[in-house]
Amino acid sequence: MNSHQERVRIGITMGDPGGIGPEIIVKSLAETGVYEKIIPVLYGDPEVFRQTAHLVQWHGHIKVIENAREAVGELGVLDVVATSNVGHPMDYGKVSAKAGDMAVKAIMAVIEAAKNQDIAAINTAPINKEAVRKAGYHYPGHTEMLAELFCADHVVTMFVVENLRVFFLTRHHPLKEAIALLTIDRVYEGIEQGIRYLQNLGFSEPCLAVAALNPHGGENGLIGSEEHDILAPAVSKAQAAGLSVVGPVPADAVFYQARQGRYTGVLSLYHDQGHIATKTLDFNGTVSVTLGLPVIRTSVDHGTAFDIAGKGVADAHGQSEALRVCSELARLTRLTT
Amino acid sequence: MNSHQERVRIGITMGDPGGIGPEIIVKSLAETGVYEKIIPVLYGDPEVFRQTAHLVQWHGHIKVIENAREAVGELGVLDVVATSNVGHPMDYGKVSAKAGDMAVKAIMAVIEAAKNQDIAAINTAPINKEAVRKAGYHYPGHTEMLAELFCADHVVTMFVVENLRVFFLTRHHPLKEAIALLTIDRVYEGIEQGIRYLQNLGFSEPCLAVAALNPHGGENGLIGSEEHDILAPAVSKAQAAGLSVVGPVPADAVFYQARQGRYTGVLSLYHDQGHIATKTLDFNGTVSVTLGLPVIRTSVDHGTAFDIAGKGVADAHGQSEALRVCSELARLTRLTT
Repeated sequence: MNSHQERVRIGITMGDPGGIGPEIIVKSLAETGVYEKIIPVLYGDPEVFRQTAHLVQWHGHIKVIENAREAVGELGVLDVVATSNVGHPMDYGKVSAKAGDMAVKAIMAVIEAAKNQDIAAINTAPINKEAVRKAGYHYPGHTEMLAELFCADHVVTMFVVENLRVFFLTRHHPLKEAIALLTIDRVYEGIEQGIRYLQNLGFSEPCLAVAALNPHGGENGLIGSEEHDILAPAVSKAQAAGLSVVGPVPADAVFYQARQGRYTGVLSLYHDQGHIATKTLDFNGTVSVTLGLPVIRTSVDHGTAFDIAGKGVADAHGQSEALRVCSELARLTRLTT
Repeated sequence: MNSHQERVRIGITMGDPGGIGPEIIVKSLAETGVYEKIIPVLYGDPEVFRQTAHLVQWHGHIKVIENAREAVGELGVLDVVATSNVGHPMDYGKVSAKAGDMAVKAIMAVIEAAKNQDIAAINTAPINKEAVRKAGYHYPGHTEMLAELFCADHVVTMFVVENLRVFFLTRHHPLKEAIALLTIDRVYEGIEQGIRYLQNLGFSEPCLAVAALNPHGGENGLIGSEEHDILAPAVSKAQAAGLSVVGPVPADAVFYQARQGRYTGVLSLYHDQGHIATKTLDFNGTVSVTLGLPVIRTSVDHGTAFDIAGKGVADAHGQSEALRVCSELARLTRLTT
């Protein structure tokens, strides 16, 4: 059997048990098609998954396994590596140290499994930052925890919706500050990085487009100077270095054109630029990918949604997308390495 | 017959004859469904439309009429009020004073027709600013020309895609400047105006959402101060004045939520915020609506596309959308006035 026909073994962490994580996991794995391409291995609490199965009226078998390699990946069976054993139903919709601890334990276990190559990729369900803090951990979020425990120097986030892949030059900065942070060197680095990560993913000749900052891409200096002073020089420098990059492209065109397949990825200059594009297209289905780890990691971009947890109404479409992107990227990476 | 069953008589200007305007008009009027709701009346040059009919292999009849009221609105017939008679084929894809003059003449005529109530709404095809200038006119664009000739004090642009309606607090300013322009008074005015225009359109109880400026809507002051210092106070002031407004809502959620029908409209704080949302969703199908004139005016948001003019390959989907939105808004306005 060729390696590209083998199913990708994905470690899936349950997230905060008081949120919608377990629910969207169980729902997304109730679809037949999923098993054609992946072997899902759940990391979390068997009791939580039993409670969830009851909630969503899923009537399959929850099978506790010791190691991801034992997972069979069949519709109707959830293979679970137990990372806690709470033994009683959990409260939904509440920030709790216990829940935070359980969520973190599942992540720690999945990282170990990846290090041992028992799984080929990671998918994580939402955690609650406050609960994690209450449980005594210092990690502000998944990304930082994964980077630290994998000893990764540098990780980046890429958003994926349909054919659109977005990198971010800056993320959690006030907009004014994100503009002030723009320099030729920083943009050049962002370009170089984006292209390198796309190549690592298996895109052989990726073309990256840099979004413009100002309306109409600055309209030749009539509406703002950053395109002329910073963005165009950074793109020229990158092109001179042999990188396949274009731009700055007006931001109201670049994401659309990327959707159409004109670019492999887009470099967004600030958080909302890429977020508005992806999340307006598909709010729940926007997939966040962490690159720079030894394995691909994907997740939905939404949170624990405590307000609707335990009601059985959570939309699992995003989780299905996160699993699809996870398997596609892991497969692509494997094919080319 | 009730007024809402009457078809809306829309004056359609041909735009620059060297661009794709005439082509998208003829293509959009070759669809049967269009005539159920509108009576299209073309303003422009009969020879240009003949040339276009040949280009797109449309085999109907071009009927020159004196007044819009003579138009019959039947598939296979294009009713044209002749605003020029060039008498020979026009060159495609070139900036020309002659073409600019023809484009302006059509707009002047449609404005007169609207003033005489011969038509109930206006739809305009793209013009070329340079050609208009060469022809000796001082108008920088359609909006300014319409405002001046209709003697309208105040006009605003609203973008429409699907269920999403977007107003802009600022438009053609560098992003840095658009942020600096934010004040409580200005945002309050933007809210008040947006709601008033929605009411004028016939939405009886419009709810407007104000987009946030910073990532995660500023995350309670952790990522930027404008939400706390400017946006929230402006929204509170508007609520206290009885206006139905919410926000600031994180910009990566607000446009999606509006699409879902949660808000009647969104107030975008800067050009690209609303542009990225609408044009990433539907680049060609984003409809620009001018409000504040005695009649509704819609247009596609793209330009003359000189690079593909005369090739018969222009996508008329946006023009079809512009006609649909024009008829819907004109109908809504009429039903409630």
